[in-house]
Amino acid sequence: MSHQRYELQPIGWVESPLVDRAVAPRQGDEGAPDAWLTFDARFSEGLRDLQVGADVILLTWLDRAHRDVLVVHPRGDPANPLQGVFNTRSPDRPNPIGLHRVQILAIQGLRIRVSGLEALDQTPIVDLKPVIDPGCER
Amino acid sequence: MSHQRYELQPIGWVESPLVDRAVAPRQGDEGAPDAWLTFDARFSEGLRDLQVGADVILLTWLDRAHRDVLVVHPRGDPANPLQGVFNTRSPDRPNPIGLHRVQILAIQGLRIRVSGLEALDQTPIVDLKPVIDPGCER
Repeated sequence: MSHQRYELQPIGWVESPLVDRAVAPRQGDEGAPDAWLTFDARFSEGLRDLQVGADVILLTWLDRAHRDVLVVHPRGDPANPLQGVFNTRSPDRPNPIGLHRVQILAIQGLRIRVSGLEALDQTPIVDLKPVIDPGCER
Repeated sequence: MSHQRYELQPIGWVESPLVDRAVAPRQGDEGAPDAWLTFDARFSEGLRDLQVGADVILLTWLDRAHRDVLVVHPRGDPANPLQGVFNTRSPDRPNPIGLHRVQILAIQGLRIRVSGLEALDQTPIVDLKPVIDPGCER
């Protein structure tokens, strides 16, 4: 058990009309807009073989989250009893990694358009993975 | 677009009989053993409300992966044509975050036992999230 820390390097960034966390949808299926993912050219080879129409798991770094939070009122509603963050999808958590299931709508070189994404504009992208079981993993 | 880097802090570690990447299962449903997740006491409040029987998404940092890889032969088989890593589940990728859907089998304080996990012994844990869509696999 090493207390070593690990360094994430953004591979790209989200381009979205969402700029205000306070009014952003909390999940992709709650009216989130389509968005562009713009990748750093250094990683272009890794994007080979992605296909329009495919469902993918997008991992982001929620850089506007609070990392010192361990309990929250789910959905930010004080009427909901406090819960441990690991039993919620709160962006506020020790390692604020966003997990988003989206569909690829278009591919233009280093830019990929995806469906319903609740991440804010300029959110760093850290990984993209294919969905293994369709219909799942969210 | 800031090229800032971000620091992950492990919140815990995997305890598993799997120690050799070369022979470890590639996915949890390919015969992976049950494992213990042992959490750092600093994060115990965040574990509140987790329940035995729940399905959760475990995110790990695959610390034995190669981060400079952008194309791979899927499943490590040279017979499979090279693909961009973002279209595969290869552990080798720029940010080697492991995504595992597991079920909670037991909870003993800071230790949580989970079903079929393909991560190696001592793999750092970076996040735990509830599954949103029940009935899904991966």
